Amino acid sequence: MAANPKQTIRWGILGTGWVSTSFVKDLVLSRPSAPVEHLITALGTSSEVKGSGFVNSIFTSNQSRPTIYTDYKSVYADSNVDVVYIGTPHVFHKESCLAAIAAGKHVLCEKPMAINEREVNEMIAAAKEKGVFLMEAVWTRFFPLVLELQRLLHKEKVIGDISRMFCDFGLDINVASLPSTHRLRNLELGGGALLDLGVYPLMFSSVVLDEHVGFRASDPEVTSSLLVVDGVDYDDVIVLKYPENGRMAVLTASMRGKSGENFLRIEGTGGTIVVSGPAASVPKMITISAKGEEEKVLDFEHEGMGFYFEADAVAADILAGRKEDGIMPLAESVRIIRIMDEVRKVGGVVYSQDSV
Amino acid sequence: MAANPKQTIRWGILGTGWVSTSFVKDLVLSRPSAPVEHLITALGTSSEVKGSGFVNSIFTSNQSRPTIYTDYKSVYADSNVDVVYIGTPHVFHKESCLAAIAAGKHVLCEKPMAINEREVNEMIAAAKEKGVFLMEAVWTRFFPLVLELQRLLHKEKVIGDISRMFCDFGLDINVASLPSTHRLRNLELGGGALLDLGVYPLMFSSVVLDEHVGFRASDPEVTSSLLVVDGVDYDDVIVLKYPENGRMAVLTASMRGKSGENFLRIEGTGGTIVVSGPAASVPKMITISAKGEEEKVLDFEHEGMGFYFEADAVAADILAGRKEDGIMPLAESVRIIRIMDEVRKVGGVVYSQDSV
Repeated sequence: MAANPKQTIRWGILGTGWVSTSFVKDLVLSRPSAPVEHLITALGTSSEVKGSGFVNSIFTSNQSRPTIYTDYKSVYADSNVDVVYIGTPHVFHKESCLAAIAAGKHVLCEKPMAINEREVNEMIAAAKEKGVFLMEAVWTRFFPLVLELQRLLHKEKVIGDISRMFCDFGLDINVASLPSTHRLRNLELGGGALLDLGVYPLMFSSVVLDEHVGFRASDPEVTSSLLVVDGVDYDDVIVLKYPENGRMAVLTASMRGKSGENFLRIEGTGGTIVVSGPAASVPKMITISAKGEEEKVLDFEHEGMGFYFEADAVAADILAGRKEDGIMPLAESVRIIRIMDEVRKVGGVVYSQDSV
Repeated sequence: MAANPKQTIRWGILGTGWVSTSFVKDLVLSRPSAPVEHLITALGTSSEVKGSGFVNSIFTSNQSRPTIYTDYKSVYADSNVDVVYIGTPHVFHKESCLAAIAAGKHVLCEKPMAINEREVNEMIAAAKEKGVFLMEAVWTRFFPLVLELQRLLHKEKVIGDISRMFCDFGLDINVASLPSTHRLRNLELGGGALLDLGVYPLMFSSVVLDEHVGFRASDPEVTSSLLVVDGVDYDDVIVLKYPENGRMAVLTASMRGKSGENFLRIEGTGGTIVVSGPAASVPKMITISAKGEEEKVLDFEHEGMGFYFEADAVAADILAGRKEDGIMPLAESVRIIRIMDEVRKVGGVVYSQDSV
């Protein structure tokens, strides 16, 4: 007797760059225990060549392949698409998101959801009006490691009251050697370390220092210092202070140097927790050093990059008729972009979108 | 044939607390290779009992013992004293220093040299007028590890151009359990993490990010965030940015949590250096990870705490007739206290001395 067939969610993908590639590769992995079946039904790309290359590099000959469209609006119009995944550069998120929503599609939009709070609010308002699902793709929030970290800190309270945390995401990019048109160097493309790397330390501070998210979470005092070259932030330091409980976060991001393995350190009255891995976007281990106890190491290996954790959550939300996710609600996106706006304002990083 | 007898420097010690004890213990260690002989000839203390306890706990029966005075002015008046070491709590430094200088004594004054820049300037002016030697006892600057670190960074340039550094000095003090009169909690005694612990990360940033010291060194932009409880800073974050070369330092100090072993991390275009040890005041190892080369670990064990490194330098200065030291010149003390004043001002930590 066959088991009940899995429910299916059908994705339209925008963009063929690194993040779209990683996302789709993860979704088409064979995961017998997956709660839902992810079908990639449509791909929007700027050229047929890019589209074919993308599909051929990811899909095996016996996997169902997406229709390739060389314009995005055909993706929004495709009746075989339930949810549009936006994996294009930051500055294009808003326009694509609004168009997909207007066509009645649900949307999972890569982080940062947009360039500034004004854009994010516009996108949220549109989704609410249309009654579709919208989420910022802060994929790492859905990692089993992160969920377990939250449980250890806030439910088990294994290190007591949290006092300080440090999180760094540095990559040794040699930005000066990139063409000035490169996404990371180009102000017009939302360049800089903050929107690209800083979002990860901010993600960790959010889940570590507050057991709540979004509108239920506390707003910290923000202090920051950016190293700005040609208008773009190469190096960021963001200090968050929560006056009501004295918690502090020192968050750093850099395009000039590689973080150490132990990229996250959390201190509490009862000990320390260190999270380690190749980078803040690839956390692998939790090391708990509780006072008076032996050090405990938890290993979190998983197949692929781990984009399917968020995709499974999005599918469950959509299939259940929810318009936003409980782990990454829309108010959380607003909270984080507001911090980033403040950091940019103080540091003197201005995007053209800010003056609209 | 006997070797030439070593030159001798005669110390008068003020205070019998932890730092005076450690200082004197180190000075009376038998070090055959020491360039000078340190004699402790006088001790100033508030009580005979403390003084005897101090002397009996440190000096062996066949070591020359200091005269114990129960007032400080007898130390300044003692003709057997060349240099006065001030190891009393922060807020008493200025008065003792000025009195010792007025008596014509050279002075080595524990860090922080005083409570604020105004006091430090007053002390320096007095020493210059009287023509005596004065130095702030930033003992760790004289450690072989620190001198080698400077050589590796600025002469050998083993990690290329320096971009970022992180330094933390956190101690798990449980301040709330201390009596409110305790030096660390008491604003009237110059309490807080900054003057006590923050000076160490500031010391490291000074030697790591600038090959010069004092008036030849650059003044960084300072951004800071303090967690203040009852007027006293429990937790400090200081960000220094050097606009001319893009170097950044993230300096942290805390009375709420213990730093990790790898308390200092320096990143450059050519690799990273990590300095480790039990605390920022007890650096033990330098680990160099230069790009394309095998990791190299340098071990720096030394006898005692290592206060004799600075004491030897002070003795050499005084015996040579110098009025300040080349490694820790007076302009450097002004530079650092100016940063601490700015940090306190922004953070809202005000000592009564600030309003004089």
